[in-house]
Amino acid sequence: MIENVLYGYRGEVRRFLEKHGVKIGDRVRIERRDFVVEGILMPRAALSEKQFIVIKLDNGYNIGVRFTNNTKLVKIAEGEELKKYTPSIKVKYNPELPKVSIISTGGTIASRVDYRTGAVYPALKTEDILEFAPEIMNVANIEAEVLFSIFSENMTPELWSRIAEEVAKKIWEGVDGVVVPHGTDTMSYTAAALAFALRNLPVPVVLVGSQRSSDRPSSDAAMNLYSAVLVAGKAPFAEVTVVMHGETADTYCLVHRGTKVRKMHTSRRDAFRSINDKPLAKVVRDKLVIINNNFILRDKSRELILENKFDGKVALVKTYPGMSGDVIDFLVDKGYHGIVLEGTGLGHAPIYIFESLKRAIEEEIPVVMTSQCLWGRINMNVYSTGRDLLAMGVIPGEDMLPEVALVKLMWVLAKTRNMDEIRKLMLTNIAGEINPRTVFSTYLS
Amino acid sequence: MIENVLYGYRGEVRRFLEKHGVKIGDRVRIERRDFVVEGILMPRAALSEKQFIVIKLDNGYNIGVRFTNNTKLVKIAEGEELKKYTPSIKVKYNPELPKVSIISTGGTIASRVDYRTGAVYPALKTEDILEFAPEIMNVANIEAEVLFSIFSENMTPELWSRIAEEVAKKIWEGVDGVVVPHGTDTMSYTAAALAFALRNLPVPVVLVGSQRSSDRPSSDAAMNLYSAVLVAGKAPFAEVTVVMHGETADTYCLVHRGTKVRKMHTSRRDAFRSINDKPLAKVVRDKLVIINNNFILRDKSRELILENKFDGKVALVKTYPGMSGDVIDFLVDKGYHGIVLEGTGLGHAPIYIFESLKRAIEEEIPVVMTSQCLWGRINMNVYSTGRDLLAMGVIPGEDMLPEVALVKLMWVLAKTRNMDEIRKLMLTNIAGEINPRTVFSTYLS
Repeated sequence: MIENVLYGYRGEVRRFLEKHGVKIGDRVRIERRDFVVEGILMPRAALSEKQFIVIKLDNGYNIGVRFTNNTKLVKIAEGEELKKYTPSIKVKYNPELPKVSIISTGGTIASRVDYRTGAVYPALKTEDILEFAPEIMNVANIEAEVLFSIFSENMTPELWSRIAEEVAKKIWEGVDGVVVPHGTDTMSYTAAALAFALRNLPVPVVLVGSQRSSDRPSSDAAMNLYSAVLVAGKAPFAEVTVVMHGETADTYCLVHRGTKVRKMHTSRRDAFRSINDKPLAKVVRDKLVIINNNFILRDKSRELILENKFDGKVALVKTYPGMSGDVIDFLVDKGYHGIVLEGTGLGHAPIYIFESLKRAIEEEIPVVMTSQCLWGRINMNVYSTGRDLLAMGVIPGEDMLPEVALVKLMWVLAKTRNMDEIRKLMLTNIAGEINPRTVFSTYLS
Repeated sequence: MIENVLYGYRGEVRRFLEKHGVKIGDRVRIERRDFVVEGILMPRAALSEKQFIVIKLDNGYNIGVRFTNNTKLVKIAEGEELKKYTPSIKVKYNPELPKVSIISTGGTIASRVDYRTGAVYPALKTEDILEFAPEIMNVANIEAEVLFSIFSENMTPELWSRIAEEVAKKIWEGVDGVVVPHGTDTMSYTAAALAFALRNLPVPVVLVGSQRSSDRPSSDAAMNLYSAVLVAGKAPFAEVTVVMHGETADTYCLVHRGTKVRKMHTSRRDAFRSINDKPLAKVVRDKLVIINNNFILRDKSRELILENKFDGKVALVKTYPGMSGDVIDFLVDKGYHGIVLEGTGLGHAPIYIFESLKRAIEEEIPVVMTSQCLWGRINMNVYSTGRDLLAMGVIPGEDMLPEVALVKLMWVLAKTRNMDEIRKLMLTNIAGEINPRTVFSTYLS
């Protein structure tokens, strides 16, 4: 994972650092006309157009020093010496506090732990976390491990199974909650997968990520992680949730139900939004404020059941004007086990793919309808297109997000290939993914 | 299009109407304990669970009478006699007002014009419109025609071409604006298509739809149509826009730019939202309030250029965890000319489809990256996944919606198959589809 000695620096700043013969991890002093800082040269995990040099100060904080023409740099010590560096914070066990397990899977939130060795390897171990966000010690005894370190765009159903298994182990060992740091790109897919895989959940499982890596001055990593640990250790609900910023400012975090959440912005810190449901709660500094009273209560005596198999042979197909049925035919020919359509409006597909859909269902490949509108509910009784699709055997996806219907169908198909059972399970609320009534008030808020 | 004599009625109400031997178009009197109404029995184009009988009163308005156990019905006259019925409103030409052409393509907004013959055929002719929303006569001289009558889920790139051609004809004839009633399911796709096809547009082109058909008491059809005619006749901008309700209540309509709008709810009347852009304007009753000053001015002397060819061999592919490259391979094998990816986050795709994407580009099939987040902008320079995709030749879709990138690539491919020219056109703002800077303030509002 060590890419190079000046990871993340480009252009003028990089040439400046190269000229001074420094590398990540070296102790340096930076002098500008107006001020002087001394500390460890940090990598820049997320590239940015802006010309900053990131320095870890002795008090543990990172700062970004803007590079200008009059910036001077003095190398004080080689990075090698830093190997002796150990976190200044010692882990203390507090019997009054809940026990929270942190299982890191990668992503931006985990891409910061590099200041001891100078290398950029995604990892969140116990001491890293406590040094990075020492306030966490006041809310929980934590025990952290790195399960794997991947960008979440490379997540797979097999990896969902492994995460679910690891979470289950910790819960069986008796922790009061589990936090799963994860890349934000597909975090909502994994959240849904864990929600289906962890049946009869006794304690909270919280996915958390960050939109800006922790070596950037504007990082949301520390606040999100702190809030996630607070939810895992103390929330009254035993649900799989996603905890992320509620606004762009560091005012509060939102706790979203894992089957009703989606990344709705490529870069904003408040990118995650509950869709067709209210968030469960808000975390305002060290206070948890319940917003939605419809949840399953935490109960440590409840026996967790692990059902972590997913059938990866399911396709998500978005419909569009002029699309051809040939893609559906291909999926059938290729032996796919199920298809989730992201149709239009109330759950419609173009009439010119009907024959292909009919054939898929005749060959016992379930077809589930969702909507590219995202908000609202499938209702295929309103127009003749929908009624024809229903008559054909297409399963209405109710108010499920397309991605959630996909994960659910993968989970259902790992249990049964019987068309009636599949239909029944897809239409039954299993993990909060189907609301009996459409929640209109949650539109765009 | 005449489905049956009691179109839209089901269950108990249908049996009641059958028992009385009445059909759509008959003149009836309905008596309930509390009141009596007399008028023409109307069809119910949109089915609803609620038990209503829809009656057209002699003053031209439709009302829905709730069916109860004590409802009585008397048949007064056969529908046949209604053939002599003509609208009571005469079209008068007012030289002070602009001339607006209405070209109907179908959808819920057009599914109401049935009261003269009793049949349910989607159509919006001049006299229908004026009787349906007589206020329109105060804002424009209208001239309406039915181009075709289809549910918009069945729209195709060939039909976009025909609509564009028809709109162009009207503009060349000298109208001051064109209104295109359209089904809401794929209205934003057609809006984008017209925005690309109608180059150098001199006057406004307004797509309009409704979420509730006009035979329902809560219909948004009349207000949307009125607002659309107002925009077409009087707005200062010469852009392709979508006009729909701004709130669920009948308070105002929003005017969205055709390349920056999307249906975001399956059923709400305010389903349409501008994404990554502010709406151009608001219509509050008969007042047009400009919200966004960044638009192209109306100028009747400008010479419209019609570029209405679209290459239908383009696929929209949404990525997801565990997806296989085999779908991409299939599209290449099948001779598709272009692929739009709906990737994750800032513009990422799973590493396990990279080989297939590489092959597509090597075979000169352009691949454009957009994001399933919808809001925000593609930035493939931040993480190594994005950088690898860029190096491979994937074209970043900037802040374009996936659907708009699809329509644009269809339009670009009809012009050129040269990879450099395609890239250049895809990265150039042509019809407001790419903002030079990301508009953060428009998130979820």
